[in-house]
Amino acid sequence: MAYDVNEKRVAKVLKKARQYLNWVQNSLLEGEITKAKYEILKQQIRKITKKDEDSITWYIFESRKIFIKETYGVEKGEPDDFII
Amino acid sequence: MAYDVNEKRVAKVLKKARQYLNWVQNSLLEGEITKAKYEILKQQIRKITKKDEDSITWYIFESRKIFIKETYGVEKGEPDDFII
Repeated sequence: MAYDVNEKRVAKVLKKARQYLNWVQNSLLEGEITKAKYEILKQQIRKITKKDEDSITWYIFESRKIFIKETYGVEKGEPDDFII
Repeated sequence: MAYDVNEKRVAKVLKKARQYLNWVQNSLLEGEITKAKYEILKQQIRKITKKDEDSITWYIFESRKIFIKETYGVEKGEPDDFII
């Protein structure tokens, strides 16, 4: 989940998203989530963002195994909870 | 490519990354890239960032078909150049 939202709403969006996903770095969260919970999260994010100002991009994969994640620099997020 | 870099370096990182990828929204670019070009881009990004301050996260997939992308709100990036 990548978020690009107005400063006024960042804290709220982050607080909500972190109930479901792991914060990786500014503007980015990731994690395993069920389809049902994903739908709920999307709805809740819609309620606290402005469609004509903010941008949220979701990348959804069936499994953690089908992509490679590489990081460079400071690891800012919580420990990576993906089970490989 | 998700970037979380010091304000002083954002413009440089963005300028370099946009030579290879499409800007989607703040802190996020995406696109198709060869392995060779990806290695070059990583090297160039390393040269213009500070390892102890900045964070770059790359998610790499073999093909565009193995993930679903959903967006909400304002589409800020250039037109999506993925060929599906």
